[in-house]
Amino acid sequence: MEQLKEKIRKEGIALSDSVLKVDSFLNHQLDPELMKAMGEEFSRYFAGSQITKILTVEASGIAVAIATGLALSVPVVFAKKKKPLTMNQDVYVADVFSFTKQEQNQVTVSKKFINPEDRILIVDDFLAHGEAALGLASIVEQAGAAIVGIGIVIEKAFQDGGKRLRTAGYDVYSLARIEKLEAGKVTFVQEELLLQD
Amino acid sequence: MEQLKEKIRKEGIALSDSVLKVDSFLNHQLDPELMKAMGEEFSRYFAGSQITKILTVEASGIAVAIATGLALSVPVVFAKKKKPLTMNQDVYVADVFSFTKQEQNQVTVSKKFINPEDRILIVDDFLAHGEAALGLASIVEQAGAAIVGIGIVIEKAFQDGGKRLRTAGYDVYSLARIEKLEAGKVTFVQEELLLQD
Repeated sequence: MEQLKEKIRKEGIALSDSVLKVDSFLNHQLDPELMKAMGEEFSRYFAGSQITKILTVEASGIAVAIATGLALSVPVVFAKKKKPLTMNQDVYVADVFSFTKQEQNQVTVSKKFINPEDRILIVDDFLAHGEAALGLASIVEQAGAAIVGIGIVIEKAFQDGGKRLRTAGYDVYSLARIEKLEAGKVTFVQEELLLQD
Repeated sequence: MEQLKEKIRKEGIALSDSVLKVDSFLNHQLDPELMKAMGEEFSRYFAGSQITKILTVEASGIAVAIATGLALSVPVVFAKKKKPLTMNQDVYVADVFSFTKQEQNQVTVSKKFINPEDRILIVDDFLAHGEAALGLASIVEQAGAAIVGIGIVIEKAFQDGGKRLRTAGYDVYSLARIEKLEAGKVTFVQEELLLQD
């Protein structure tokens, strides 16, 4: 998605060969117009899939998930990273390892918000090792619902998450795929290579 | 806002005389159409205030903040509840006590996302004791920016947050104000009382 790549070129900061900082529009400050455009792009790509619900994980996934839910006219559910006092015990749980924070987390979703009839689009801001997406996919599968696809804002194509998800059979659509990060420079996967996926 | 009150009457669950569960549309599952309507209502109320940015706190505030940012065509910043490894030290910090979780937290905002010229609308999902809103207000004041107002989805008017914020001089606009919670029953503040504020 050219609008997103342009934003990454302009405002993204490659902090190292593995960390891309995009906190000016995706992870801390949010660009609502860009979110809307990304939601519409996911809606366009997954049109005709009879999606009934969007599933994401707090916190950075919520903005793009809401924009996608608005474009598709379906509810959004965000998985919680820790269980608040007001949530009852009736939840699906999946383990997610955070490489950024080097810690094991659990994500939980209340059982009442995913039904076996649901056709779920998983949406998240980043795809690196695929831990979050696989955790969300596990929750959908525990619920006996269908996974229509996985929509990702930025895929670090040099890490193994995309391969893990595609090998598992999921239709993964990433709006920007990064081939390489070097200090101060972001290289995107060429469209030709993308078509060979 | 009648559409929101109707949703609360239909789906809100008064778990006790102080806890209202609205996880089917605000805190876990999200209703994008309702978010859009709420964002437009905040935009209508604060029209003409030359708002340059929305400030909220992760995670439940993000959805309504994005909808408001879209309605007002301004960026959204969400304060973080703990400092991730990829965030540098150049942040504003405020203490926020969570009565629900009975723990002291800090919220942080990167200094680069609030400037002295900014005119900030603070948005959050709940107003109870006012801790989160006061923490966000403190951050805006640390930055030397102006606080245009505070937009709240659900105000528990029987707790002291609204009074604390209004006494401090902030223009607080709550889309639904709850006078009383009893097991299974939600009573809203009468509009007449609201006009006397």
